[in-house]
Amino acid sequence: MTAIELTDRQIKIVEIVKERGPITGEQIGEILNLTRATLRPDLAILTMSGILEARPRVGYYYNGQSGNTLVARAIGKIRVKDVKSLPVVVREATTVYDAIVTLFTEDVGTLIIVDNEGGLIGVVSRKDLLKIAIGGNDAQKIPISMVMTRMPNIVTVTPEDTIYQAAKRLIVHEIDTLPVVRTFALPNGHERQEVVGRITKTTITKLLVELGEGHN
Amino acid sequence: MTAIELTDRQIKIVEIVKERGPITGEQIGEILNLTRATLRPDLAILTMSGILEARPRVGYYYNGQSGNTLVARAIGKIRVKDVKSLPVVVREATTVYDAIVTLFTEDVGTLIIVDNEGGLIGVVSRKDLLKIAIGGNDAQKIPISMVMTRMPNIVTVTPEDTIYQAAKRLIVHEIDTLPVVRTFALPNGHERQEVVGRITKTTITKLLVELGEGHN
Repeated sequence: MTAIELTDRQIKIVEIVKERGPITGEQIGEILNLTRATLRPDLAILTMSGILEARPRVGYYYNGQSGNTLVARAIGKIRVKDVKSLPVVVREATTVYDAIVTLFTEDVGTLIIVDNEGGLIGVVSRKDLLKIAIGGNDAQKIPISMVMTRMPNIVTVTPEDTIYQAAKRLIVHEIDTLPVVRTFALPNGHERQEVVGRITKTTITKLLVELGEGHN
Repeated sequence: MTAIELTDRQIKIVEIVKERGPITGEQIGEILNLTRATLRPDLAILTMSGILEARPRVGYYYNGQSGNTLVARAIGKIRVKDVKSLPVVVREATTVYDAIVTLFTEDVGTLIIVDNEGGLIGVVSRKDLLKIAIGGNDAQKIPISMVMTRMPNIVTVTPEDTIYQAAKRLIVHEIDTLPVVRTFALPNGHERQEVVGRITKTTITKLLVELGEGHN
């Protein structure tokens, strides 16, 4: 899986640089019996893709990364604020039953529970709700605050985080949704986390479709 | 959002080609007062990234796509068979209750229902099960076959489909899981779809993390 299909000559150059780097373009040319001008496009591609690094007056050296650096760079440049969706929130007094209804009407996998100022206090997933529903409890009587995950156990992202960081958190913590929060310091020394969006696996899947557009 | 940050000179070349293409490298060089050799790395990058196309004896022309083509190409090359997970399957006689238990023990969002030969006959999502659980039904008595989505309403992919096609189907059909199937013609003229894997939004999110590795 590489972003660029390297030509045989480019692969040869990478091998030479791996073995002998740092090495100048002229020296690579000598080994391959080619002029520096002929090699210039290859070297440009290999450095732009991040496979090789070039240092003035030193030469080319192998930077140990794969050919995916261009793709990685593209993904690393997309920020949470560029792709986040609106958060679907309920208040903590909401019953489990009403939360489930909201989950269906809004068609989301996870609800975010906020206080009266829009501050984050909890999250509840489809899985949490299914567990309650199947447990024979009266969903109409249990408030969502009894079953939600609370701070500090909620994994969040900020609008400035990259989509790579967000995707990684979804995978590492095995969750479906990340509340996007902005943190404010309160006069009493505490912090308030205002919920300004959500990132879900659907967000990530949509992004991959967008990145893949134009190819198929 | 571009995969490559173009230099000023590269942007100028794109503008020239947009306006006057098809145009040869020599002609571009004349306009910019640069030799063709000097331009070669720029032209190589612009064609490799898919921004410009080059045709022998015709010249360069603008192909109307964004600088994301390298990323699109990388995504378009990954096949379902390269990233699919094992399917989590149950038989159609399974009760809704047992299906929910399987969903929790296997920690998946969707169950695939198969016949005795491993042929696809249905899918059931966490959402479908939550609807039954909250509806006050006796989950221990209802077989999963009564609540599952059946063929021909199941959206599938084949091992040879690209991950771009899979992601697009997840988004377009608003589903969380795609069974990966191999189709066999039966002697009676029907087809059997053997379930060989699954693609979920988790698969896609993991892939994005993998593609983004090395940047952060």
